[in-house]
Amino acid sequence: MISVVIIGSGNVAKHLIHAFSKIDNINLKQVYARKLGDEALMKSNIPITNDLSLLVDADITIIAVSDDAVAAISCNIKNSLVVHTSGSVEMNALKNPKNKGVFYLLQSFSKEKEVNFSNIPICLEAENESDLKKLEKLASLLQGNIYHLTSQQRKKIHVAAVFVNNFTNHMYTVAHDICEEHNVPFNILQPLIEETSQKIKNLTPSESQTGPAKRKDAETIKNHLNLLSKSHQELYLKITQSIQNHGKEL
Amino acid sequence: MISVVIIGSGNVAKHLIHAFSKIDNINLKQVYARKLGDEALMKSNIPITNDLSLLVDADITIIAVSDDAVAAISCNIKNSLVVHTSGSVEMNALKNPKNKGVFYLLQSFSKEKEVNFSNIPICLEAENESDLKKLEKLASLLQGNIYHLTSQQRKKIHVAAVFVNNFTNHMYTVAHDICEEHNVPFNILQPLIEETSQKIKNLTPSESQTGPAKRKDAETIKNHLNLLSKSHQELYLKITQSIQNHGKEL
Repeated sequence: MISVVIIGSGNVAKHLIHAFSKIDNINLKQVYARKLGDEALMKSNIPITNDLSLLVDADITIIAVSDDAVAAISCNIKNSLVVHTSGSVEMNALKNPKNKGVFYLLQSFSKEKEVNFSNIPICLEAENESDLKKLEKLASLLQGNIYHLTSQQRKKIHVAAVFVNNFTNHMYTVAHDICEEHNVPFNILQPLIEETSQKIKNLTPSESQTGPAKRKDAETIKNHLNLLSKSHQELYLKITQSIQNHGKEL
Repeated sequence: MISVVIIGSGNVAKHLIHAFSKIDNINLKQVYARKLGDEALMKSNIPITNDLSLLVDADITIIAVSDDAVAAISCNIKNSLVVHTSGSVEMNALKNPKNKGVFYLLQSFSKEKEVNFSNIPICLEAENESDLKKLEKLASLLQGNIYHLTSQQRKKIHVAAVFVNNFTNHMYTVAHDICEEHNVPFNILQPLIEETSQKIKNLTPSESQTGPAKRKDAETIKNHLNLLSKSHQELYLKITQSIQNHGKEL
């Protein structure tokens, strides 16, 4: 049995509360929420507080708040092992007096959608081996895939995540705009989107690269630019350039 | 029963030959390949020719060659209904004397990977209703999802496909570079990549957009830029800008 306290009531906090509540070997002792009154939380049997001085101790106290609030809130937490869940915040940004660590879930959490934790990459960091063991135990109860990353590695991976998640999603947005403008349903692209995301399981993305930029097919590139709005043209050109320059700088 | 002749021996041609050969109600009468000697093709029982004057007629003759070869090769084909498989070539680029059409498969075809045709979007165009019916019959034997697109719509969708396939793949490439540089296995990002591609089944990409660009989180954007190489910085900035300007031009 491992005991846990959660600080926060945002997206990540809620998904963790939901997941922990369903696992027998995790004892979710308390949740801190600045504002009480979250309906789902109030309905559950988990003790809630909005007063940090009433916090109980646990094997692991997880701060799941926005990046810029981590340092400030951690000052006031005297629990034995305090970890945050942020990709881009260093472990040492934690200002609690006792042990520190990181429990970063590398996944996109939406309000609307339940998260399947099994196989989620969980990036761990701790100050000593025994704390790391505790975090590993919690991560394996969630059936996550455990990675040990330093704060520096984690920060870089967080930028990589922006490319594969936020920026890829923007590629979908541009495509959605084009479909809408020409009265074609966007879901016509779904099989291609899925194939693109699956292909890189067996090939490196560099090996998977195809298309006019890669082929240096100037004629098709010119035709494509003529079909695009000005802002999409600029984006198309920059990415085409980046594909063509890939490998040159490395 | 529907009879088919295929012109070409590239990626798309090979996948079509493979798929057609397995379907009872399709009679693949002949394949034209400029160079004989493709081993898999020679081993099959399908009659092959490298002489267009020896071409037999069929219900549908499919030209699956590179975009810029479609017009030239079509001049020499006297068959009754000739279609090409290209996303960005107009139907009227076909110069065969008889009926013309388009049979465009909106998917990425790799040499290495077998394609599951069921649910592949197949974009059809024809000069008359009875030709369209023939193409629909062939598409449904392949278990594809049928769409009727004009040449103009198809060209635009082809550009949209570049965004969701080639450009998205480049986002993966940049992320792969970052992972490699910091000794983190790239597959740490696979669950996030899949979640990103799945999320847009239920939300529009614009609704799914998250991240520092969307939040206008200047501090995180600055930190991310500091972690990137010069060429990746430029790309990061341009896409961030495009996310922030999205909707303004429309």
